[in-house]
Amino acid sequence: MYIIAMNYSGFFIPTLREVPADAVIASHRLMFRSGMIRKLANGLFAYLPLGLRSFRKVEQIVREEMDAIGALEMKPTVVQPGELWKESGRWEVLGEGMLRAKNRLDNDFVISPTAEEAFTAIVRDELSSYKQLPLVLYQINTKFRDEIRPRYGVMRGREFVMKDAYSWHCDDESLDKTYQAMGRAYRKIFKRCGLSVIPVKADSGAMGGSGSEEFMVESEIGDNTLLLCKKCDYAANVEKAGCKPDFTAPPSIEEAKLSAANTPPYEKIDTPNVKTIEELGAFLKNNDGSPMSSKQFIKTLIYRAVNVELDLSSAPGCKDLERKNFAPDSAKGGVEMYPQAFFAVAIRGDLDVNEAKLAALVKAGEVALAPDADVVRLTNAPVGFAGPVGLAALPVIVDHTVTSMNDAVTGALAKDLHYRHVAYGRDFTPWMTGDLRTVKAGDLCPACGGTLYEKKGNELGHIFKLGYKYTRSMNVHYLDENGKSQTPTMGSYGIGVDRALASVIEEHHDEAGIIWPVSVAPCHVIIVPIKYDGEVKTAADRLAADLENAGIEVLLDDRNERPGVKFNDADLTGIPWRVVIGDKGLAQSQVEIKRRGEKESRMTPLDTAAKELQQKINEELGMRNEE
Amino acid sequence: MYIIAMNYSGFFIPTLREVPADAVIASHRLMFRSGMIRKLANGLFAYLPLGLRSFRKVEQIVREEMDAIGALEMKPTVVQPGELWKESGRWEVLGEGMLRAKNRLDNDFVISPTAEEAFTAIVRDELSSYKQLPLVLYQINTKFRDEIRPRYGVMRGREFVMKDAYSWHCDDESLDKTYQAMGRAYRKIFKRCGLSVIPVKADSGAMGGSGSEEFMVESEIGDNTLLLCKKCDYAANVEKAGCKPDFTAPPSIEEAKLSAANTPPYEKIDTPNVKTIEELGAFLKNNDGSPMSSKQFIKTLIYRAVNVELDLSSAPGCKDLERKNFAPDSAKGGVEMYPQAFFAVAIRGDLDVNEAKLAALVKAGEVALAPDADVVRLTNAPVGFAGPVGLAALPVIVDHTVTSMNDAVTGALAKDLHYRHVAYGRDFTPWMTGDLRTVKAGDLCPACGGTLYEKKGNELGHIFKLGYKYTRSMNVHYLDENGKSQTPTMGSYGIGVDRALASVIEEHHDEAGIIWPVSVAPCHVIIVPIKYDGEVKTAADRLAADLENAGIEVLLDDRNERPGVKFNDADLTGIPWRVVIGDKGLAQSQVEIKRRGEKESRMTPLDTAAKELQQKINEELGMRNEE
Repeated sequence: MYIIAMNYSGFFIPTLREVPADAVIASHRLMFRSGMIRKLANGLFAYLPLGLRSFRKVEQIVREEMDAIGALEMKPTVVQPGELWKESGRWEVLGEGMLRAKNRLDNDFVISPTAEEAFTAIVRDELSSYKQLPLVLYQINTKFRDEIRPRYGVMRGREFVMKDAYSWHCDDESLDKTYQAMGRAYRKIFKRCGLSVIPVKADSGAMGGSGSEEFMVESEIGDNTLLLCKKCDYAANVEKAGCKPDFTAPPSIEEAKLSAANTPPYEKIDTPNVKTIEELGAFLKNNDGSPMSSKQFIKTLIYRAVNVELDLSSAPGCKDLERKNFAPDSAKGGVEMYPQAFFAVAIRGDLDVNEAKLAALVKAGEVALAPDADVVRLTNAPVGFAGPVGLAALPVIVDHTVTSMNDAVTGALAKDLHYRHVAYGRDFTPWMTGDLRTVKAGDLCPACGGTLYEKKGNELGHIFKLGYKYTRSMNVHYLDENGKSQTPTMGSYGIGVDRALASVIEEHHDEAGIIWPVSVAPCHVIIVPIKYDGEVKTAADRLAADLENAGIEVLLDDRNERPGVKFNDADLTGIPWRVVIGDKGLAQSQVEIKRRGEKESRMTPLDTAAKELQQKINEELGMRNEE
Repeated sequence: MYIIAMNYSGFFIPTLREVPADAVIASHRLMFRSGMIRKLANGLFAYLPLGLRSFRKVEQIVREEMDAIGALEMKPTVVQPGELWKESGRWEVLGEGMLRAKNRLDNDFVISPTAEEAFTAIVRDELSSYKQLPLVLYQINTKFRDEIRPRYGVMRGREFVMKDAYSWHCDDESLDKTYQAMGRAYRKIFKRCGLSVIPVKADSGAMGGSGSEEFMVESEIGDNTLLLCKKCDYAANVEKAGCKPDFTAPPSIEEAKLSAANTPPYEKIDTPNVKTIEELGAFLKNNDGSPMSSKQFIKTLIYRAVNVELDLSSAPGCKDLERKNFAPDSAKGGVEMYPQAFFAVAIRGDLDVNEAKLAALVKAGEVALAPDADVVRLTNAPVGFAGPVGLAALPVIVDHTVTSMNDAVTGALAKDLHYRHVAYGRDFTPWMTGDLRTVKAGDLCPACGGTLYEKKGNELGHIFKLGYKYTRSMNVHYLDENGKSQTPTMGSYGIGVDRALASVIEEHHDEAGIIWPVSVAPCHVIIVPIKYDGEVKTAADRLAADLENAGIEVLLDDRNERPGVKFNDADLTGIPWRVVIGDKGLAQSQVEIKRRGEKESRMTPLDTAAKELQQKINEELGMRNEE
């Protein structure tokens, strides 16, 4: 940054005592009160000069770490042609969250919410040979997403700045290398910003091998639920978290049959007017008279899946299923997919099915509960009476929890009827088993078996192996070493700059204000003369000049205000080092220095203050810079 | 910039031989061919890594010079709430050139074409005391204007980056001080970029004292016509250019009467079926039989003016004109304006009326030729027969050229009738005289009387004393030293970054490619090893490292390409200094260095090449940095 010494009075730092009514989190309150941001409209914030300085420092840290791994910065437009989004298919998919505009010529435009399309379109036109790969491009640029309820200041604004990087590769190995380098760069970026992030890996087993890692910060208002292990460093987003089953490996069918050796044969029971699992438990009762627990039921749900890649040719009820070749012009022969398929999922009655896991397991573009009409058609019963026994019209997928159930209650594929004494392996066999449950606090860690607990988190960054999604739909090709046309595989990597900045404040503040890490502070030192006059003024000016010459960014509070006002503003704006200069100290050639956030200040000779501060500041910067 | 030494093969520089069909100007052709930009859609260009480096350098030069004069950078949003634009009244005025969007909640948004409203809204909320003024804020940010025919690459794109600054002041003196500082900063910015600009001042007389200066570059495709003086440094936009009348001062009415002493009394003549001034000239003839010249006619045009501030209470026909108080809640009492008024303008027959000058003269928001019905009503004659003699229904304004006409032909306020032998001062007197003509090549310079000539130009920057336009309509107030509420006056100052960059290329290129000034070159030195192998490779790597250590930005062409290909790309991309390293030179421990754009290269010792280049580069940077 260019200005390194500036006078407070010449700067524009409108600090405030009051807190806007809608500012419920610390970063929103403090960014507003310290004069970093102002609201232009719901979800639209202007960065004032002080705020912009910190904002640019986060940007620059991101830029440096991207450049360090060989990513190349470029700049497509913020307003993008709608045609690109129609080509990729996201014009429809992204819905109302994407801000669109039509110009006078009736051209469609999109205010970029992300930029896979624009980058891929440029690379498509320039890519000819495998020699150009891998290629990693990025931008740090304005984005817009029309949040329905923008809240929490810049933490969830409509307009924001994102660093988004995209990479193209000949093969998975090359993609993985860049993906790993990005992961390391992200860790370094967050460390340099003073942020404690929780890297959350998608369970690569459940996600079918395509890698993805989210970088979360803990936050009471976080929009993600994380599951963390008390024993090891396992962390997962609830959307994707795996968990260790209550046994070491699912039993085989033979083992399951054996464990059901003493279970009575299953029998049909009337369950009239019973609507919920709870009512059913109370109605049925155990031998000791206690109501049956939901853990004794097998819940069976019918899902509709779209664009399924998994081979279903030998799956029950799928023999005549339509299968289509997508991107048939690709040299690799394109992909065969089922535009639509149905699956029954059996899971223990107290658990929920994680749809992301199910989609990954069957390699589907999307899954959702099937419409009632399809449920009735496939189960031959009203909704609510599905069960795995005798279900032949579609593939039955069984969650690991069901594989140890040897005396369960299930729906009987008929109105007001259930089966009891149903045993897995004996009374039904699955087409497939897998980990499909939504993990909860108290479940066991899939890595070490420790107990999982929950935290709320906000996503600051995300690295993702995209694969062929865009390169196929947008027809990107290169010639390989043998001169054959190939489609490259792709990765994408994002960091929200505004959100990272706000998260720094969430992590570093106290009652009085922000406590900036030096790396992203708007400036390093604030000099507070008790009265900016006479010898104090001379000393303050000299110290500011000395610091400026040493490359330290200084704000000199030259205002004619009471010391209390100046101290409060210094605390509120959170400048890391405060130097107080007053007559009393000066009589001893001393000034008072204090690290924001620390309780104790101390006196130090005026003559060596600049050197001392320089050393402290460089130490802190150096520490964060270490690999 | 972070990366200072990089390998060509690891960079993304897709150079091209062919020129896109629509690239008709050098900068568009060369930015495309050298891999600086690619087109995403009409008027939407992506900067590739090489282009972005130069782009950022222009931005940084602008930023440094803004910071140096105490302007404070901030960042409002690109997508702005429509409400702000409705408040200022520009929601309607800016029309279809402004891209608008509606979100799912039916909120109106504007993709910012400029930001007077957003900045003024923020300042309005924070401004309380005169002590906060003057305040100068700026941003360097994305803008969008929906050009109907976007052309010439980034020179006239739809999306572009503009530095826009705004200032608020207690009084005109303070505004003028900032305005002058901006003017000096702009000259320095363009000098540092290697741009020869033509500063074009609005004629402050004609423009009613409100200052405005445009910074133009000559361009064959320029959308402005400039008038320049052959003798002095006078330069003006044709829209606003003044010119020296053919006499030193307009004659007084007495002088005019005297000069008409020998003119016969005016008389009415029939001019049936005569439609144009040319036909009238041929019809009337001079005494020697030659057709009369258009210079012998007085053309009289009726204008309708909107929001007129000039006091018309004593003007002919204006006694009962409606007058309204705008912004009556202002402490200064608001402004009295006539929502509508009509004026007759008399000008020599061969000349055109400059509407901008007329608007400035009568202090109108806008002027345009009056609708036919009004002309008929006010002149009591069909359109085409207006004349100043006997015209009493509205004020007659006389261009300076008319004040020396003592024997002229004019319309006679009746169908197919004209007057001849009309003399200014004798047969009619004006309500007002002024310089209203559209200046043309061949006219005389208003500063020195030299002859004016024309050039086409493109506007790179504009500084402008806005006055109270936005602060009044948006109700901005502060308390003055006496605790009284006042409205601040305002200035605005813009520079187009993309256009400045393209203009550098327009000014610095040859057949082979770009010739960058060091200050905005994507990097300073390109090292071209004849073959990147063996000792040549060792020497090239060492030189790159030496240059990097000296803070010089280096591109090392490590590609396995023929030397001719590498030389062509080096010329095309225009890197200022080229170092060729080959076996032959190395045998003598020599390398070849050449400044791009110069014919001659020369050999220099490898050992001292880095030092020599560093010196040359810093010399050039220092030269441009000088005040």
